[in-house]
Amino acid sequence: MENFRLEKDFLGERKLPCNVYYGINTLRASEHFNVSGKKVNFKLIKALVIVKKAAALANEKANLLSIEKSQAIIKACDRILKGEFEDQFITDSLQGGAGTSTNMNVNEVISNIAIEILGGKKGDYSLIHPIHDINMCQSTNDVYPTALRIAAIRLLRAAADSFSKLQTALQVKENDFSHILKLGRTELMDALPMTVGQEFGAYARAVARDRWRLYKVEERLREINIGGTAIGTGMNAPQKYIFLITDILQDITGLGLSRSDFPVDTTQNMDVFCEVSGLLKAAAVNLIKISNDLRLLGSGPKGGFGELLIPAVQTGSSIMPGKVNPVILEMVSQVSMKVIANDTSITFAASSGQLELNAFSPLIAENILESLEILNNAVISLTKNCVNSIKVDVNKCKFNLDASTALVTALEYYIGYDKASEVAKKAINENRPIKEIVVDEKLLSTDLLDKILNPFSLTSPGIPGK
Amino acid sequence: MENFRLEKDFLGERKLPCNVYYGINTLRASEHFNVSGKKVNFKLIKALVIVKKAAALANEKANLLSIEKSQAIIKACDRILKGEFEDQFITDSLQGGAGTSTNMNVNEVISNIAIEILGGKKGDYSLIHPIHDINMCQSTNDVYPTALRIAAIRLLRAAADSFSKLQTALQVKENDFSHILKLGRTELMDALPMTVGQEFGAYARAVARDRWRLYKVEERLREINIGGTAIGTGMNAPQKYIFLITDILQDITGLGLSRSDFPVDTTQNMDVFCEVSGLLKAAAVNLIKISNDLRLLGSGPKGGFGELLIPAVQTGSSIMPGKVNPVILEMVSQVSMKVIANDTSITFAASSGQLELNAFSPLIAENILESLEILNNAVISLTKNCVNSIKVDVNKCKFNLDASTALVTALEYYIGYDKASEVAKKAINENRPIKEIVVDEKLLSTDLLDKILNPFSLTSPGIPGK
Amino acid sequence: MENFRLEKDFLGERKLPCNVYYGINTLRASEHFNVSGKKVNFKLIKALVIVKKAAALANEKANLLSIEKSQAIIKACDRILKGEFEDQFITDSLQGGAGTSTNMNVNEVISNIAIEILGGKKGDYSLIHPIHDINMCQSTNDVYPTALRIAAIRLLRAAADSFSKLQTALQVKENDFSHILKLGRTELMDALPMTVGQEFGAYARAVARDRWRLYKVEERLREINIGGTAIGTGMNAPQKYIFLITDILQDITGLGLSRSDFPVDTTQNMDVFCEVSGLLKAAAVNLIKISNDLRLLGSGPKGGFGELLIPAVQTGSSIMPGKVNPVILEMVSQVSMKVIANDTSITFAASSGQLELNAFSPLIAENILESLEILNNAVISLTKNCVNSIKVDVNKCKFNLDASTALVTALEYYIGYDKASEVAKKAINENRPIKEIVVDEKLLSTDLLDKILNPFSLTSPGIPGK
Amino acid sequence: MENFRLEKDFLGERKLPCNVYYGINTLRASEHFNVSGKKVNFKLIKALVIVKKAAALANEKANLLSIEKSQAIIKACDRILKGEFEDQFITDSLQGGAGTSTNMNVNEVISNIAIEILGGKKGDYSLIHPIHDINMCQSTNDVYPTALRIAAIRLLRAAADSFSKLQTALQVKENDFSHILKLGRTELMDALPMTVGQEFGAYARAVARDRWRLYKVEERLREINIGGTAIGTGMNAPQKYIFLITDILQDITGLGLSRSDFPVDTTQNMDVFCEVSGLLKAAAVNLIKISNDLRLLGSGPKGGFGELLIPAVQTGSSIMPGKVNPVILEMVSQVSMKVIANDTSITFAASSGQLELNAFSPLIAENILESLEILNNAVISLTKNCVNSIKVDVNKCKFNLDASTALVTALEYYIGYDKASEVAKKAINENRPIKEIVVDEKLLSTDLLDKILNPFSLTSPGIPGK
Repeated sequence: MENFRLEKDFLGERKLPCNVYYGINTLRASEHFNVSGKKVNFKLIKALVIVKKAAALANEKANLLSIEKSQAIIKACDRILKGEFEDQFITDSLQGGAGTSTNMNVNEVISNIAIEILGGKKGDYSLIHPIHDINMCQSTNDVYPTALRIAAIRLLRAAADSFSKLQTALQVKENDFSHILKLGRTELMDALPMTVGQEFGAYARAVARDRWRLYKVEERLREINIGGTAIGTGMNAPQKYIFLITDILQDITGLGLSRSDFPVDTTQNMDVFCEVSGLLKAAAVNLIKISNDLRLLGSGPKGGFGELLIPAVQTGSSIMPGKVNPVILEMVSQVSMKVIANDTSITFAASSGQLELNAFSPLIAENILESLEILNNAVISLTKNCVNSIKVDVNKCKFNLDASTALVTALEYYIGYDKASEVAKKAINENRPIKEIVVDEKLLSTDLLDKILNPFSLTSPGIPGK
Repeated sequence: MENFRLEKDFLGERKLPCNVYYGINTLRASEHFNVSGKKVNFKLIKALVIVKKAAALANEKANLLSIEKSQAIIKACDRILKGEFEDQFITDSLQGGAGTSTNMNVNEVISNIAIEILGGKKGDYSLIHPIHDINMCQSTNDVYPTALRIAAIRLLRAAADSFSKLQTALQVKENDFSHILKLGRTELMDALPMTVGQEFGAYARAVARDRWRLYKVEERLREINIGGTAIGTGMNAPQKYIFLITDILQDITGLGLSRSDFPVDTTQNMDVFCEVSGLLKAAAVNLIKISNDLRLLGSGPKGGFGELLIPAVQTGSSIMPGKVNPVILEMVSQVSMKVIANDTSITFAASSGQLELNAFSPLIAENILESLEILNNAVISLTKNCVNSIKVDVNKCKFNLDASTALVTALEYYIGYDKASEVAKKAINENRPIKEIVVDEKLLSTDLLDKILNPFSLTSPGIPGK
Repeated sequence: MENFRLEKDFLGERKLPCNVYYGINTLRASEHFNVSGKKVNFKLIKALVIVKKAAALANEKANLLSIEKSQAIIKACDRILKGEFEDQFITDSLQGGAGTSTNMNVNEVISNIAIEILGGKKGDYSLIHPIHDINMCQSTNDVYPTALRIAAIRLLRAAADSFSKLQTALQVKENDFSHILKLGRTELMDALPMTVGQEFGAYARAVARDRWRLYKVEERLREINIGGTAIGTGMNAPQKYIFLITDILQDITGLGLSRSDFPVDTTQNMDVFCEVSGLLKAAAVNLIKISNDLRLLGSGPKGGFGELLIPAVQTGSSIMPGKVNPVILEMVSQVSMKVIANDTSITFAASSGQLELNAFSPLIAENILESLEILNNAVISLTKNCVNSIKVDVNKCKFNLDASTALVTALEYYIGYDKASEVAKKAINENRPIKEIVVDEKLLSTDLLDKILNPFSLTSPGIPGK
Repeated sequence: MENFRLEKDFLGERKLPCNVYYGINTLRASEHFNVSGKKVNFKLIKALVIVKKAAALANEKANLLSIEKSQAIIKACDRILKGEFEDQFITDSLQGGAGTSTNMNVNEVISNIAIEILGGKKGDYSLIHPIHDINMCQSTNDVYPTALRIAAIRLLRAAADSFSKLQTALQVKENDFSHILKLGRTELMDALPMTVGQEFGAYARAVARDRWRLYKVEERLREINIGGTAIGTGMNAPQKYIFLITDILQDITGLGLSRSDFPVDTTQNMDVFCEVSGLLKAAAVNLIKISNDLRLLGSGPKGGFGELLIPAVQTGSSIMPGKVNPVILEMVSQVSMKVIANDTSITFAASSGQLELNAFSPLIAENILESLEILNNAVISLTKNCVNSIKVDVNKCKFNLDASTALVTALEYYIGYDKASEVAKKAINENRPIKEIVVDEKLLSTDLLDKILNPFSLTSPGIPGK
């Protein structure tokens, strides 16, 4: 019995192991929400701890909290921010209560660490109280969305950086492969010649748009509702505290946070997370497109398109000797599909807010942070383990282009549409290259043909050869 | 002014053109819900008219409605069912009110046709009243879901039939191509040999599951809530009428409809439509997989996989001479994506029901019927315009298989995993066929090699050649 | 037989009725893609016609097309833009071929109108040829995405304008109701007092964000790939023509269009439509939230929240006398769900592009334009038929607030958290108002209580009464 | 250096800590797929281990594997199945390679445990080889889908059981509350009287359908492709082994597994998981509907509907004294939304299979198992922590019903539709109960009125009072 302490709430008493820093609210929550086995994202916990630290400072400066308490709380927060106590945050990521359980978990752990700093025993809340001290002038409803924005902005910046590096990697390939001719395909059918560099250039530009979007949307997240308390009206949060905490949060985080000018809105509406998720979804769409293309161009090695050599990173099969698969690209596609799926949750949850609050913000938080994290990690792996080492099979590029009828469109100006169609049909039926037929049938002089089929001419605007 | 008649409701009077059969409720609805430009699906209107006809018969037999009125109503219904008056159903498919506007549109049009049959003038509702006579003992809330089930079952049967025909078409190809060897690919990389017949056999079996699911789910739709009136408790619907109308509906439709034993549930819950839509989504998934495969195997004609010849149905390009695209398959994919998207609406709407009713059933109705229709039409076109005429390029199949390392796994038993890997590597690097290397290096006798590489042996269970 | 003309393509000859302006390509497409019964959005057709008109002008100025032909083509285009010939655009909105059938439908109709203008007979393409003249220097793959952007920008502007009007309407209510106290609720449970004006203010701000997003995203659509021809490399489009057509398109449309600096990207990637759709989805999320709130606050009239009076627009029930339903709001929710569902199609299709083209752009086009149109129409109806006429039941607001425990948080500073909890519990158990208990138990003087419970104080930041 | 062992593959040598049981393939995978931080679901790992155990037995009986090796492998498997070595399965749940990395992780860990059982040192694969022995006659492509089906069936049974218990709990409430009259609402507006029991009865029946669907779909999962090896053709898997392993798997699992009669289909197509997920989505839809209803009926406690008393399970607010929130119901809604979102991943991934395999099966596996687990856990918590203890506020039910106009429809038969409308209007405007007006205006005798307003009569089919 000595290994336990007792805590109490309006529902009664509960025993807690002496060594745990969380309290009765956390205990109850862990029992009710024993659902996914996945704890609340620790990046969100850290952002909450930052808010708590800022609140302690603001309350101290506003003369609402003694320096002694404030200093103990700040020390406690700093220890968590350094990575200690992660195992004390046991609340399931799928939870009811709009984040109250997460907030209470944070309040209780900080409180008990601070109590020990002050020389007390865990559970002696007369020294530092989870609600009255740690949560002073706050409500879950302003603390939680504020912390979520901080966590999201940090991940957004990391993601924007990763996309930027991917863009650079693609541009290196664009440059490296700028003189290699290949077959361009529309609807998977032979179309026109292009360069391998142009192929990568299109990917680079799509990724550049993603980076830009991620960079721009940050501003929408900077508006925080801290100080709004329960429904955004700010009841029980003194003006002095409100101004202080926003400034302090800016200082601690280094982010350009600003107080919402209408926190009733900011507290209840989650459309900005839907917006961010929508942009991540657009990035996912580009990544799926690029991954699918690279897998297709690298298909084979002998019985497929075979134009690209995707770097081998691991054994591909437990049964087929020598098989290598484009596993990084497959991973990227799956991550992207998950980001798209997370957008479904976020959209559903964001639309389900009611009146002054969105009770489903924990799902939104879980999914937006996960999307940002996995997208970021996937893009890092894609750049490093795949794009950087992609090579071209120049011979296969040439083989496919020559075998195709792609060059016939370049001749249309000179021999007319009908003759061009005829040559194309003959090339397909007799399995002969376009060039050969044109020369054999003396449709064009070899000189003119060479001029027309000049790589630059074939892949730039205008009539080839003119 | 003579070209107009006046109608009145609790909001006031409105003028209606004399020639229209709908009334003031329809007029107002058409103004409020002028949203999508797409009218309510006429198959749903017809099903509603069937319910109205059955109700008139039941009410007559239950002595609630005079034979004169009943006969006029039935005649009016029959004219609509023959296809007349379609232009009188002007309510937008996106509408509030859980279908009330659609029901009122039907009530008013039947009423005015019946009034004319009785020799009256449109709008003289003392002869036949839209509410008191046409809607007698009914509520939108039992009429509308009942009609939706009837319309859905009919389309479900049509779709099951189309899938069945597609299955047959695929099985014909399975049989026709059962002896043509080709390269099997996993993760787009060269894997093992198989027959073209096996490729089509896998598609046929997937489609067979779809057909089975569509066939089985009908039973879930047969439970109707007619007689439950506004919230399923049946207030104001006499028992006699309730028993009669269910029997009559069975007779008229020829469907095995049965009355729900707990209409409060059937009135408010839309999960069965979500279930049906989920199965259509599984069918869509199979169609996308099959279409993508066929497009990939038919890619080229020269610079791609080129193993299948997808029938040409129209000119493919306005700029590239001779280009032909797999447009039927692309259409099938898009229809499938739309079915998946419709499932999003249906899921969202079905989950948004509140208490005794789902106010969003018009969206559910619109989308489930559309999914059934477009899937059905797409499968019919796919079977007729594409699958039936697919041919194989036997030479390309052989070329790709021989170029690949797919045969090396068949040799593993004889030469060991390590030697097999070595041969595979050599084949790739030197661009030589596996067979050639094995013969050149005298790893196996030509006799044994032929036995191993026997097509049946290569594509059936067991160690090839044993 | 005289009522028909013959047209021919590489698949053979077909009869066309003499009176139709479309040709053999359109005929074939209408047979293969007889799927949804919904034709291509006429706003897209008009945008395509604008591109054709601009191309004719550019080709004339570049000396590629005679003035005679050019003038006939322009006249033909102008007639279509005035609304003529809509029935000649019969291609189904669900179609394979990346828009080729739509483009060919447009080419053929313009061509035959122009032929008649020149005094010829429909089908005599020696006068004006659908491909060689109308499609000169173009490919479906640059024409179609360009037209889609033009159509989308126009609808985007209309939608931004409608959202702006909705915002104004909500702000009028914010102002009108700024002094009416009501109960604020979180997680549907009684929380804190607020004003009805604050409720509407939160909606107004959410809608303002939507408007801003729609306004900003236009710039992403302004980059067009016209001149890129089949895969963006610009083969067969002379430089002179390319510069001319972009300028002319700017002139005709009045939109700030600019030529993509890398059309290979713009031709193959559809992420911008995914981005636009994602923002429409965020708007849909806000509309669902607002509609649900208004329906909830207006629930009753007697057995619900009953705080708002949603204007009656039509009879609500075919069975319950006097029933009125919030049908406009229900319609808005359904439109929003459809916008969310359309985003699923768009995401799926946009991610399914392959190599140099996205074959599924017709689905993207259909859905993005539909989303813009229905959202716009729904918001117009919402503003006009609902928000503008919403009234408040001041008595019910007061009744609910007084019955609740919302005021107890305002007393916490004065009587402490524990006493406040006790008062709250007593109020609930004894069904008495907070004020009464505080006065009865002499916890606070009436003067101080009045000061604390001052409406402004209760709904602004800080400790109430201080 | 002594703390490491060296392992080698075709890419080169890597150091592994001596104490780890996984090998070089797992190590590489953990580096490439360091994406989500969430390991492969251990229930899937266990199912894979069961397949490995069955394979060892089958191979022993088919004389392909020595008894010594087989026994060591089986012992190793049994230790994992008892829960040991969980920390050795480090592969990220988001991975490329169609499950190869997971399969290799399992192969390597079993192998090294078995090596130790035989007295060897980890890494000495001459004793027991991960590929040649553990993976004998298998491919990831038959092992992985087979294991996934086993894991899914087990979770499906657990979920069906939980739904069954929820159904029972709801039926207990249906019975307990069968005589309490309340207001029924459609479109959130006052409609007709009903009993609280009927409310719960509708929920019970919806849940019963879910249970039935989960029960029935199991049969679709029982078809396994084990023995099909890489692409379903069964190359290198002897017939004897194939028959043995299926029987052994049935024995070990106790599930009615049967071998697919066309494993080429079963290997490449994932539509059955899409079907299962679709049904889970239908269950999610019902749970959202039920949770939302319960929260709405329990809203207040004083300023809302207030008809139900949702059990309090934890403190609701960190700022508002006495506040209690319906957190279990909110958790259930979020879990349901996540299940709907997972269906998006599954649909996307299932449709993205190509040719002989679906490379994205790891995403499908992760999401289908997660959906089953969280749904199961949520339903258990819902039953135990919420439904079982729900109570009714009988007075509030009566208050809302009496205040409403719901009774007026019951009088329509006696006083006519027009008079009924008039009474309804008067009741709303003068804020008086229907009964009072009817009595005051002497529209009906008190006796008849009592007969009409008899609770049973009001909530059963027919004209009330007749």
